[in-house]
Parts: sequence; structure tokens; C-alpha cells
Amino acid sequence: MPAAAAPPALPRDGRRVLVVGAGIAGLVAALEMRRAGWSVRVLEAAPQAGGRCTTLRSGDVVEEEGGPAQRVTWDAAPHLYANPGPARIPHHHRGILGYCRTLGVPLEVLVDENRAALLASSAGPVPMRRVQADLRGLVAELAAKGLERGTAEAPLGEADLDALRAMLRRFGALDRDMRYNGTARAGWAEPPGAGLAPPRAMAPLDARLLLEPALWEGAAFAEGVDYAATMLQPVGGMNRIAAALAAAVGDALVTGADVLSLRRTESGARVAWRGMDGAVREEEAPRILLALPAPVLARLDSDLSAERRAGLAALHHAAAAKLAFQCERRFWEEDHAIYGGISWMPREATQIWYPSHGFHAAKGILIGAYIWDDETGERFGSRSPAERAAVIAADGEVLHPGLGREVAAPVSIAWRRMPRARGAWAEWTAEQRRSLYPLLRAPEGPYHFAGEYLSWFTGWQEGAVLSAWAALEGMA
Amino acid sequence: MPAAAAPPALPRDGRRVLVVGAGIAGLVAALEMRRAGWSVRVLEAAPQAGGRCTTLRSGDVVEEEGGPAQRVTWDAAPHLYANPGPARIPHHHRGILGYCRTLGVPLEVLVDENRAALLASSAGPVPMRRVQADLRGLVAELAAKGLERGTAEAPLGEADLDALRAMLRRFGALDRDMRYNGTARAGWAEPPGAGLAPPRAMAPLDARLLLEPALWEGAAFAEGVDYAATMLQPVGGMNRIAAALAAAVGDALVTGADVLSLRRTESGARVAWRGMDGAVREEEAPRILLALPAPVLARLDSDLSAERRAGLAALHHAAAAKLAFQCERRFWEEDHAIYGGISWMPREATQIWYPSHGFHAAKGILIGAYIWDDETGERFGSRSPAERAAVIAADGEVLHPGLGREVAAPVSIAWRRMPRARGAWAEWTAEQRRSLYPLLRAPEGPYHFAGEYLSWFTGWQEGAVLSAWAALEGMA
Repeated sequence: MPAAAAPPALPRDGRRVLVVGAGIAGLVAALEMRRAGWSVRVLEAAPQAGGRCTTLRSGDVVEEEGGPAQRVTWDAAPHLYANPGPARIPHHHRGILGYCRTLGVPLEVLVDENRAALLASSAGPVPMRRVQADLRGLVAELAAKGLERGTAEAPLGEADLDALRAMLRRFGALDRDMRYNGTARAGWAEPPGAGLAPPRAMAPLDARLLLEPALWEGAAFAEGVDYAATMLQPVGGMNRIAAALAAAVGDALVTGADVLSLRRTESGARVAWRGMDGAVREEEAPRILLALPAPVLARLDSDLSAERRAGLAALHHAAAAKLAFQCERRFWEEDHAIYGGISWMPREATQIWYPSHGFHAAKGILIGAYIWDDETGERFGSRSPAERAAVIAADGEVLHPGLGREVAAPVSIAWRRMPRARGAWAEWTAEQRRSLYPLLRAPEGPYHFAGEYLSWFTGWQEGAVLSAWAALEGMA
Repeated sequence: MPAAAAPPALPRDGRRVLVVGAGIAGLVAALEMRRAGWSVRVLEAAPQAGGRCTTLRSGDVVEEEGGPAQRVTWDAAPHLYANPGPARIPHHHRGILGYCRTLGVPLEVLVDENRAALLASSAGPVPMRRVQADLRGLVAELAAKGLERGTAEAPLGEADLDALRAMLRRFGALDRDMRYNGTARAGWAEPPGAGLAPPRAMAPLDARLLLEPALWEGAAFAEGVDYAATMLQPVGGMNRIAAALAAAVGDALVTGADVLSLRRTESGARVAWRGMDGAVREEEAPRILLALPAPVLARLDSDLSAERRAGLAALHHAAAAKLAFQCERRFWEEDHAIYGGISWMPREATQIWYPSHGFHAAKGILIGAYIWDDETGERFGSRSPAERAAVIAADGEVLHPGLGREVAAPVSIAWRRMPRARGAWAEWTAEQRRSLYPLLRAPEGPYHFAGEYLSWFTGWQEGAVLSAWAALEGMA
């Protein structure tokens, strides 16, 4: 894992660069350019910096293309927010975390896997702890039986077999006979108290129930290197990072600057943009860093090569979507002892995220749906905001009967419908990585490129940071 | 798991009770009595309430029996503290969490398992993520090989075998041939970047290394029902809970009140105690709730039955110990991307705990040792504070070369040497649970009893809460 991460050293030659797009990639690039004493201006179409790194709070408005504007009518309170875009930072994403550190963005733990969270099964919701414990028990028992039939291979000898058995016993909570008979890891049928009766562990789930994909698929998600503890989040919302970067970039940032066209000139390129006042301005620079999402850049009026424009348009972008709503009562904490984490269901809503902050507060914002499957995301996106909320409230009943009554002030974002994103993140095919990726990451005349799509960390802010550093390296 | 937890309903008969000991059990009992309108006084020998539920901050003094006083010389800052006693709250400990909720004690996530934390092996420290991933791979591959040799049992049929194989592939990150060849779950040999080269996953550890008990034992700890996510801690230190309970108990609490003797009277019992002013007072009440640690109660001058006193003395109490020190630099975050969690080593220090709060702050308090094994704890406790620090600094080098240079202002607590605890927590034998537990939890004339030792949750604040509720039930 990377012990450290650092931007490239830049020549302090006072050069002038225009950056288009103030998402994480554009902001990071502009900040490093400023630190090197370069003359920078960043043009951002939105009224605020951040791009997909955004946070919804009371009063915010979501405007999807072709849909009605959605105003966020939650209470105004520091803990009542939702991150519709990136919402977690793995501890080893050293680039973005380095900016949090140097810019003083306070961080707190985000709970990704919570053993009290629920997995929907044909027999109703099952707590994650029970699935995890029983899966480990089942797999360890099978492994132990295999050992008796000689499945261990050289170079393992007889002494190693004893070590293997001891490991399996601990791994799966097996008994002395290498059988799994249940364990308190799965939870309590009778919890420990202060009475005379001893506690009693939960009995194992029926093996056939345990083999339902919705259980074992959901149970493994937090084994992924980008999903395993420790996961972090900025205190108060993900866009605290973009806000801190924007503050550091300072007056180099122009928001509400809608770029209309890009044209090469003899000494660089010229950008035409419309400002907040409606006036169209032109600005020329020897180098332009295009830090826009690929689908947005593909549609921009530009003299980028036809090959590049076709490639940008061909790059698949996920139809991810989220829906958040306010709850008057944190029923997940009060009724189920669920503090943060994610529940899963094989329904359109896919996931429920519980907040990892504001524990025991009066109200809470629940992410009632986090969808990333294309077909599901498209179906969700095609609905009206009100229809989406109705579907998601019904889906959630699978995990939390009565949830429908708790849904207030729902807000949803379908990322393909957001005009300044046109998708959630890039998804490269193996073939595109070979053929297209080298083309898209290479500079083209005065044009340079950055964005999460130009990294192996697509969909993560870390990818945006690393792509910005790579672009700077290409300019240095 | 318990959906809720609540104290028993008490008769509102204005009765008078004297509580001895203002640890969690005594405080909870007194609070509920006050809520019921009873007339309560709580006598606590220490200058503050909380008992073993305590937090060390700048200026605090630790006084072990027979040892020199240790003054905490850390900087004064909200994030620079250590919890030498209980330091984590499992999400399903509904009793203690209920008081946090109703009394407004802010909570935050405590990272128990961190996949970036380290496990010491004969080949040096190995990140938890690598051990976890490779163990799952090894066990799943063995299970898959076993399946080929017919280890699956009725009622599982051929269709279930396909499901089993699919589950095992996901469980262990096996390839199509059901072999484990490494996975990014274990981390990156070449991390994802923004260059042309694709990332490369870590190769599997040598199987013999993986079978070292220090690896697989440490790797399973957070599977335990009381150690699995979500784990919580009060913001600012564990004794925020005791402080909130004490505030709610109000003027019923008398601190610095050293109880000298207990004697039955015609209408109850009489307690003699020495106050902060040195004067000895006597107080009589129809009922006395003795909420002292068992080893302390065993030594008190009392007319408790000989059988009880012998039982209290016979109950084993752990020789647990902790050592904390201040670091000028949060090297674990800066150099290793370790945010919270626990590293393990088969040395006297046993564990290193990294703080789950104050991320990226200027300094940090590290728990350099958490010991609970009796023999190790006794050895550690028998050393002088300076010797302890030297040993623990040397041990820590196994995980973090150079750690020794980072140790400043060490403070240690060996719980058997703390005069008001005389041990960390009760450890019942199965035989004692049958014979002694019913005796010790039963009231004796005017005397009632509470404390973590009178529960199946020994060593946890939850046990103290539940024991207090059980005692109230016995008084109601």
C-alpha cells in the first residue's frame, strides 16, 4: 500500500494555465499550480465548486435534466445532510486524505460494514453478524472435512495439519470435533443478563437459506480493499473537501462560468464562457487543463480530435443513483441498535445507508436507496421523484416493516440525468484500457486532461487527485 | 439481540436507600431510585464518580498501591486522553447506550478492527487485511477441494453444490478453478494510480507463515459479538458517561466518602464513613446497595456472611493493565495510514490501540499496551512505571520500528494494584457460576448487591447496568 502520496514537483516558471471544471481534479490541479506560483484561472459552470463531490442540505436544489427541480426541505442542522456522490474515503487513499490533512478538513469514521445491518432473505431480514458467523462456520467445517480426506498439499506436512486444524477451529468457531454448532459471534438467542440464566447463542441458519446469493454476496462486500475498515468521512458532509480546496484556490476560481467552446490558437487555445451575468467572455492561455467528466467533455463544442471525442463518448458511465430522506425518529438506532453501516436487499433500492454520525440525535437522514446497476439505475432514473420515493419506501419495508411511514422530504439524484456529470463514474472495459486509455490520458496540443476517468481508481475522489497529479506531471 | 432494554418499574413509595460505590452500577441504581422518588445517598470514596469507568487527561494522577504516583503530563487538549478502563461500547449494549441517549452523552465510532492494523509474525508485521484475505482464500480453497471429495452432507443436493461453489468463490476470492491466487482484498503490490500500468494485487503469504497463531488468532478477534462493528465511544473520553450519570444523580452523590464499616441494625444497617474533611460520620438506612467491586467489598469491615465474604474473595479478577503515552506526531496515520484500531504482538505489550478520534491532529495518545493475560499482567504490574514504559517501547518496535523514540509521558495502570478496584473484572469459573453466583447476587438482610461481577457481561459497563437493574428488581 502506498506509504505516502505527493504531487509532482512543478517548475516555478510563472506559467499561465486555464482549468476547466472545479471538481476534485480541477481543484487539486489548480491548487498545486498556485503553490508553484503559476497563474491560474478555474472556470466552473456550477454556482459552487466540487462537481460530483457534493452534499445536500436544507434549502439545496437538485436539477436533473428533464425533471422537476427538487428542493431539499430537511431541517437545518449540522447532522442532517446526505452525500449523493462520493460518501466514503478508504484509509489508504493517501492523495485525498493528504489534502484533508493539510487543509484541515476534520474527518470521522464511516461505518461501512455493521454486523447489525440487515441482509434480505426469503425468510426475512437477517443480521449481518449471523450471516458472517454462519458462513465462516460452514466454510471452516467443509475445509476441516476436506483435510480428513487429504486435501492439504505439499509443502504442508503433519505438523502443519495440526496448525491448520487449530486455525480452522478459531476461524469458524468450530467445536473440538471440527463441527460448527453455532456461536455467539452470530448473536444471542438469549442475551447475557444479570439473572441466573446463562446466555445462549443463536442457532445456525439453515444451510440452504445461507446459500441464497443475497446473503453471501452482501456479506463479502467489506472484504474489498476499498470497502474495508477504516473508512472515513469529512465531518459535516463530503463537500467540506471541495470547499476547503476551493478556499485554498481562492480568487483563481470563477463559479457560474459556463464554458461554451474551445478553439486552438497560435499560442495555445481560447475558451469562450458565459458568466453569471449572462455576458460571454473569451480567454486565451498557452495551456488548458480540461477537468470535466468524460461525457460532458464529449459534448462540449471543441476542436479536440474526432478520435478523442468519440472515445470520450464511448466510455461507459454508471447509472448510479441515490435517494435520501429525513426521518423524525432514528428508528434504526432506537429499535434495531444499528449505528451506521449498510443493509442490502435484492430490490431496486439495493442498499440502505444509515448515518455514521449524529447518533441519538432527534432526527436523521437515511439513504434509502443506493443503486449502481445500470439497468436498475436507468429504471429508477426514469421515474418521477415522487414515484422514486414511493418505490423505495415500499422496497425498504422488506428490511424495516413500517419504513414507508418514516419517509419524509425525499430527494433523489440519478447521476446520468445530472447535466454537469451525465453519469456517476467511468467504467472501462479491458479492451478500452489497452486502446483508449493511453489516448485519452495523453495531452493534445495545448489541451491536458484530468478526472477520475483517467485513473485506475474510477468512481473515487482518489482517482481524481491522482489524475490531476498525472496531468501536472505531463505539463511540468 | 435485545431490541430494547429498560430498568424495572419501581414503587413510588419514597423509601430511603444508601448506595455504596459510584461506579456505573451504583450511579445507575441511584439514578433510577431518584427517578422513582426514593430518598438516596451515594457514598463514593474517590474524589469523582465512575469507578473503573475513567479517563486520563492532563493533570490527572494515578495512584497504585505500593507504587509511586504517576502524574499525567500530556498536553491539555480534548483529543489527548486515554481510557484505562472500559474503552469501547458494542452497539448492542442497550442498557449503557440508553443512558448515553437519555443523558445526551455524544457518541462516535470506535474502530476495533482496522485492516491496516498490524499483526506481528516471524517475518515482521503483516497488515490485518493481508491476513484476513489470505485466510479466507486458504479456507475457501480447502473447502472447495473437500467438496470435490464429497464432503457436503445431506440435505444438500447437486444444485446446492453449485450454490456452495459460487459462495466459496466469493467468500475466498477464488478463481474459476476454485483456487486462491491472491486478491486485492489483501492489498496492492502496485496500487492503482493514474499511469498506464494497471494495479497489481499482493501475492498470497506463504501458507506456513499464515499458520502462525499470532496471525490467525489476532485476525479473528473482531468476529466476537462484543468486538464486531459497530463499536462506539463517548466523544472526549469514557468517563463522560459516569460524569453524566453523576450529574443526573445530583446532590445525592457524596464523593471522597470512604466507607469504613457496615453493621446491621434493628431497622436496616449502619454505614460509617470518613469524609473529605477527615471526620467520621455514621448513617443508617433500611436498605444498603453495595455497588463495590467484589475484591474491595471482600476486604471491607462488614457483617456480611462469612460465606459471602469468602466467595467475594475467591472470585478471580483479571490482572489487566494498560499503558498510554503521548506522541508528538501521529506517525501511525502519517506513515502507515492507520486510523484507529488495534495491532497485535505476542509480547508483553500484547496490543497497541490507535485513537479513533482526533485524526490528523498535531499529537495523539497511543495505548502502547493492553494486557489481560494474568501472568503477563502480573509481570507488567510488578515493574516500576519507568520500567513498564521501557519494556513496552521495546515491544512496540516489533510493529513500528522507531516507536521507542516516540514514547513521551507514559502513564500505566495495573488494575490489580488500584486500591479501589483490586482487579480489572470478574472471571467466573463454570463451577462458580453454579454454586457461588446465586449466593452473591442474592440480597442478604438489608444488603443488596450490584456490579459487573453480578452479570454475564463481566468486564463491560453493560454488566454493571444490568446488575443494577437486577438489584433494583430485587428491592422493588
